[in-house]
Amino acid sequence: MRNPEIYLDNSATTRPCEAAVEAMLRCMREDYFNPSALYARAVDVERALKTARETVAGAVGAREQDVVFTSGGTESDNLAILGHLLTRREKGTVLYSAAEHPGVRNACREAAALYGFTAREIPLNARGALDLAALEGMLDGNVQLLCVMQVCNETGALLPVKEVAALRDRLSPNAALHVDGVQGFLRVPFSLRDSGAQSYAVSAHKVHGPKGVGALIVQSGHRLHPLTVGGGQQQNLRSGTENTVGILGFAAAVRHYPADAAERLAALKQTAKDALAAGIPEMRVLGPAPGEADAAPHILYAAFPPVRAETMVHALAASGIMVGTGSACSSHKRGRSEVLTAMGVPAALTDSSIRLSFSVDNTAEDVRAAAEEMIRQYRLLARFTRR
Amino acid sequence: MRNPEIYLDNSATTRPCEAAVEAMLRCMREDYFNPSALYARAVDVERALKTARETVAGAVGAREQDVVFTSGGTESDNLAILGHLLTRREKGTVLYSAAEHPGVRNACREAAALYGFTAREIPLNARGALDLAALEGMLDGNVQLLCVMQVCNETGALLPVKEVAALRDRLSPNAALHVDGVQGFLRVPFSLRDSGAQSYAVSAHKVHGPKGVGALIVQSGHRLHPLTVGGGQQQNLRSGTENTVGILGFAAAVRHYPADAAERLAALKQTAKDALAAGIPEMRVLGPAPGEADAAPHILYAAFPPVRAETMVHALAASGIMVGTGSACSSHKRGRSEVLTAMGVPAALTDSSIRLSFSVDNTAEDVRAAAEEMIRQYRLLARFTRR
Repeated sequence: MRNPEIYLDNSATTRPCEAAVEAMLRCMREDYFNPSALYARAVDVERALKTARETVAGAVGAREQDVVFTSGGTESDNLAILGHLLTRREKGTVLYSAAEHPGVRNACREAAALYGFTAREIPLNARGALDLAALEGMLDGNVQLLCVMQVCNETGALLPVKEVAALRDRLSPNAALHVDGVQGFLRVPFSLRDSGAQSYAVSAHKVHGPKGVGALIVQSGHRLHPLTVGGGQQQNLRSGTENTVGILGFAAAVRHYPADAAERLAALKQTAKDALAAGIPEMRVLGPAPGEADAAPHILYAAFPPVRAETMVHALAASGIMVGTGSACSSHKRGRSEVLTAMGVPAALTDSSIRLSFSVDNTAEDVRAAAEEMIRQYRLLARFTRR
Repeated sequence: MRNPEIYLDNSATTRPCEAAVEAMLRCMREDYFNPSALYARAVDVERALKTARETVAGAVGAREQDVVFTSGGTESDNLAILGHLLTRREKGTVLYSAAEHPGVRNACREAAALYGFTAREIPLNARGALDLAALEGMLDGNVQLLCVMQVCNETGALLPVKEVAALRDRLSPNAALHVDGVQGFLRVPFSLRDSGAQSYAVSAHKVHGPKGVGALIVQSGHRLHPLTVGGGQQQNLRSGTENTVGILGFAAAVRHYPADAAERLAALKQTAKDALAAGIPEMRVLGPAPGEADAAPHILYAAFPPVRAETMVHALAASGIMVGTGSACSSHKRGRSEVLTAMGVPAALTDSSIRLSFSVDNTAEDVRAAAEEMIRQYRLLARFTRR
């Protein structure tokens, strides 16, 4: 008997691990104190926050004081972009890759609308890789900020952060580099120092932590203006009573995240791809294929023409299998994916594209069972779809 | 035997109720899906969010679509102030009461620093009440926004929101009125419509919900510009994956909050005040005294000269009794309270001021035991304090 529920939409969100849940329960039932209060029980909570910052920072080779906890990835990206640009005197250009999540893309556009910066998109090639030659042509002394994500949440493409940093060093030495690490953190190794980036945004709920908490990890000396002002918490960079419950849950999830995740995830992705390719010759992988150097281990994005993505999602859900359709963050309202449009993917493929995203909770058996059901549904549905 | 731990710092934060904890556990273990996903299990979570909005809105007579969930009170205040002012064409004046929390005060100052508004403080009298005559002199057609909190987090004074709204209607009809309800929500009845306010900020962790979640409740038609942009969640007013865990915990806490809280809290406050006044004749209540028409039921703020507040806090903590010293949000770094300074309270009283804040978890026995211990400590400590 297969698992009655197979969850393969882990880039939309993950199930919190029990270590995170237990840490949160303890914080709510016993250690619920406000970390700003003076008595010893509250000071203990403040100390636990410091340890949590160490844990999150340590995962990317940074230090405790480099971490600002936020309410999630989108707030972290907004703080990195708008918060940094508010410290800049020159209203120059902001560049962002066409692969960026709306949390980055729209923050850059907001910097244009509110603060007079010019926002420009760095193009992608047909595989979803960054067009480095085009970027080179866009870099000059006027660029204030560059935004390049670690892993594209739709295609699973790894973006060339180090190459971008090297081009920046050569052509726009005053520009800061922000990396949205929401889809990469822990699943793909990252060192803030080695990357050349000034800031790195992460989210807890993508790595088996709770929703409502994330962090921005910042290179020492990099300037930020707060976007939320008040009581001066977190070195005055993000006011508001710290979400101790979420933060301690986040740190527990980081500590609990398996060291061999990348290999396990890559194996699951390969299993899924092989099974689906064997059963559905019409499948077209979008973005880098499993095993390619710039393919993230945990996301398989592919089109299954002529079956519409929504039809497939609902058919699979009826069998307890949950898969995504690109960015969950905008799937309700999207017209077409801006990322696929930038890659030049034709509408017929975009409309039939399914994202399978894996987590360390999944097993090879789950993945094989899901692929089998997808093949069965595909054969049923394709027959009834006009070509 | 008395309770080994007596927590009387409920205006800093409260212990989450079991109903909230259970709702959060269920959301993490079973209903962890991203509410933006397409499959039925995710749509169920989206429906639960709608019910949560109804619950929170219903507590102040508003409608489901009037609620924007945020990461807490400070973000709600920032959104109400900066988010609203970004929709205004005229860069006029912003008025805020001298009783405001730093989340409001500093957001108004930020509107001045970033966007060219003029921020001015409305004075208080010696009891911590708003100086309505002074406000009348400050109102004119140039005022864009007025900020007056429902209950002062330091003194427990109820501010005259309806009178302020009436003055606004007469003298500054184009000004919006924002009410910080973080210390009032549920403990003091409030109707958004009857108040005349355009927005009302609340926090879950002050009413036995979790930290990291709050809401801004907004009158229909009142304009806001988002401060966090991205995937367009929450009617595009606050992007980022919804903190479903925190939101469902918040709604459970609201549903579970006892209807007779105001009477129970007022009785606890009266018990504390009577016991302390009998044992410590030197006590000086700051702000309205229990039973006065503008006294909130749950906060007793008083000076105990010549004993310094920090000394008293630590002495009580050693006996398992936790009390506050004004705003926990800034108690670590404060020099002197800006609110007490605005009231003209002399430094000797400010430095010895203790805030007792009650919740529906406290009993009269707890309060009497805490008062007894405070009296004992006061007598010990006063003897060793230079006068």
